[in-house]
Amino acid sequence: MTAKDRSGFVLHGAVVYSKDKDKLICFDDAYAVSLDGISEGVFPFLPEEYKELPLIETGGKLIIPGFTDLHIHAPQYQFRGNGMDIELLPWLETYTFPEEARYSDLSYAERAYKIFAEELKNGATVRASVFATSHTGATLRLMELLEESGLVTLVGRVNMDRNVPDYYVEETEASISGTEEWLREAEKKGFSRTRPVITPRFTPSCSRELMTGLKKLAERYAAPVQSHLSENLSEIEWVHKLEPDTSCYADSYVKAGIMNKGIPCIMAHCVWSDEKEQEILKDNNVFIAHCPDSNTNLSSGAAPVKCYLEKGMNVGLATDVAGGHTASMINAIRSAIQVSKLRNRLYDRDTKALTFEEAFYMATKGGGAFFGKAGSFDKGYSFDALILDDLSIPTAREDLSAKERAERFIYLGDDRYISGKIVAGKRIR
Amino acid sequence: MTAKDRSGFVLHGAVVYSKDKDKLICFDDAYAVSLDGISEGVFPFLPEEYKELPLIETGGKLIIPGFTDLHIHAPQYQFRGNGMDIELLPWLETYTFPEEARYSDLSYAERAYKIFAEELKNGATVRASVFATSHTGATLRLMELLEESGLVTLVGRVNMDRNVPDYYVEETEASISGTEEWLREAEKKGFSRTRPVITPRFTPSCSRELMTGLKKLAERYAAPVQSHLSENLSEIEWVHKLEPDTSCYADSYVKAGIMNKGIPCIMAHCVWSDEKEQEILKDNNVFIAHCPDSNTNLSSGAAPVKCYLEKGMNVGLATDVAGGHTASMINAIRSAIQVSKLRNRLYDRDTKALTFEEAFYMATKGGGAFFGKAGSFDKGYSFDALILDDLSIPTAREDLSAKERAERFIYLGDDRYISGKIVAGKRIR
Repeated sequence: MTAKDRSGFVLHGAVVYSKDKDKLICFDDAYAVSLDGISEGVFPFLPEEYKELPLIETGGKLIIPGFTDLHIHAPQYQFRGNGMDIELLPWLETYTFPEEARYSDLSYAERAYKIFAEELKNGATVRASVFATSHTGATLRLMELLEESGLVTLVGRVNMDRNVPDYYVEETEASISGTEEWLREAEKKGFSRTRPVITPRFTPSCSRELMTGLKKLAERYAAPVQSHLSENLSEIEWVHKLEPDTSCYADSYVKAGIMNKGIPCIMAHCVWSDEKEQEILKDNNVFIAHCPDSNTNLSSGAAPVKCYLEKGMNVGLATDVAGGHTASMINAIRSAIQVSKLRNRLYDRDTKALTFEEAFYMATKGGGAFFGKAGSFDKGYSFDALILDDLSIPTAREDLSAKERAERFIYLGDDRYISGKIVAGKRIR
Repeated sequence: MTAKDRSGFVLHGAVVYSKDKDKLICFDDAYAVSLDGISEGVFPFLPEEYKELPLIETGGKLIIPGFTDLHIHAPQYQFRGNGMDIELLPWLETYTFPEEARYSDLSYAERAYKIFAEELKNGATVRASVFATSHTGATLRLMELLEESGLVTLVGRVNMDRNVPDYYVEETEASISGTEEWLREAEKKGFSRTRPVITPRFTPSCSRELMTGLKKLAERYAAPVQSHLSENLSEIEWVHKLEPDTSCYADSYVKAGIMNKGIPCIMAHCVWSDEKEQEILKDNNVFIAHCPDSNTNLSSGAAPVKCYLEKGMNVGLATDVAGGHTASMINAIRSAIQVSKLRNRLYDRDTKALTFEEAFYMATKGGGAFFGKAGSFDKGYSFDALILDDLSIPTAREDLSAKERAERFIYLGDDRYISGKIVAGKRIR
């Protein structure tokens, strides 16, 4: 079968993507080839074999892989940008739980999740791992809306059986059986790009019994797991009190069996993970979702992600709406760099700041790896691309290299400058 | 003379402005009255005396005072968002001086400053204190363009007679006489809203002889002064070596006579000002231009502005393009809060984070005070306003208070949502 018999296209423009955490591949002028939704690679001259594919001339626009948001709370989207005056635990009680509880009302969920899905579709995110609420109906509806959006997502019905207000808590058994029911319902929907992810909120609100039950579901339904870890110092202290037989916060997930090599797992934050906890994360192939804006807004701290990267751990980037005020992954990349600079200057001179290359990598290939081969134009990767009209951000400079354009877009760009978006070879806007 | 015989109008919408650093005045529905460019105040019901003024119905939009950017480098605008990988002193040598030197070419200056003036006009800034370059022609042209924009600005021809590359340095005498020539030329232009500000770059690039000469010009032409202070630790060390008879960095300006009670003065940064330096700044009524993004991007640190505010010092907010990547004062407010949270968490637990009220105050009434009565809708203040279409930032919430809307706009808004801009009673967009 030749290229022309297959579904594909060629994008022509400037191209930037990550080879690895330290290296960006940059072309001022090149051709990116998609065949059956998979990248064939990027070429300074178009190889003969692709010449019969449809050519999309971008007019010199900048083409980069789309971003993976490894941690975002869909039901918190409506109050993003408000309530930034308190830390995590009171913030959950004051703003988050009351808002999430509203999603028992399917008509509110419909209205709110439509906005969320539409906004995510219009932004720079192509893949995301999403927390919903503990409401099965609303969560299934969110999955339908995300499926329609064309984005590739993992969506989790949230579990909580303790330390949550009466109006929102579940009984342990009901939480487990409700989750299984949701998994079955989701299966029936036949989604092609929307998958369930088992989602115990975090140790403070999940008993070991609950997590052990969820672990079994993760195995039975071959579902990954997502949760929170070591975000805030008061939270960590609380976990020590709740789970006295654990050696660290991560150990509470290990002891429940839900953090193990066999289950793909995302842990958001890891701001205060010490050496021992880092080892547990590394041993279990956990993906760390670094949330720089959220960790700043809730005064949690600044995670040592530079160390995590240097140790070869899996690190992706995330917006963590609504601890993070925006679902913009462009903003998350810039913030990751900024936060790492202040961390270096004010707290830990031994850990250098993140480079642009590292932050870009985390948002693409780093986090994308949780979804398989995603976040790069290397041959064999899912063809996820943003076409950026970055040069319409005014400047008198005419000599910008592709790399400078990418950096400049991250510092100055927003949704306005996304003129095309492709997910797994399919144009969604 | 009754209100209707005078030039004025009434704006109807939600209104938020600062009373002082701790208090926002918020109206969900009110009338803001401008007469001859001056605020008459804000009223929940329109007083009889203003009922014959033209009424501008905003349709429930949010009305806030425009922002004052106390420190921005116009010639650095073209490379904003690039070159964020090094600290202050190498950054000046590598990116800044070569770019600024280009403004000897009037045609480049024309092209670049047009973009700058247009962008500033379209953004949330109504008043600014601007650094140009040491080129008289280009600086005068920048002043013309800013005058045309309708913004109120101070613009400075930059002085440097040492430690600057040959291609950009001036002789001491030539720098002083060139500055006087520029002041005379500027006077002849008859600008109504654009004034010169004496601008020694910073102590490392200005000899005492130069600064003493500039001090005389400031007095002769009744011009204010702007410069940089205690931004970066290597810079501070360098000043100690260059000026061994000074007790601190600020003392180098005091000893040259240019920092004194008689000359209004802005000092950008003050990241590392100790108690002694803070006293000097307070004694001399210096305005501190806090530049949170710049201080982060160049890994300079995080200024203790909360302390400055609590001591009753003058503090405004600034973008410091291109150390700051954006000229958006909206962004500067958000960053001021964010940076103060990390400073508190990582460096100095005794100094609390900035509140939203404090950051909003710095960007309006705090910095505006350098221009006289500006940055508030209190009676007698210059009527500078932004009309914001903040509710078009999507949300399912329908119960947002005026204060929540203002906070939300600062976290999520940008130029797109500015639907009107008024400076000193004149609508400029």
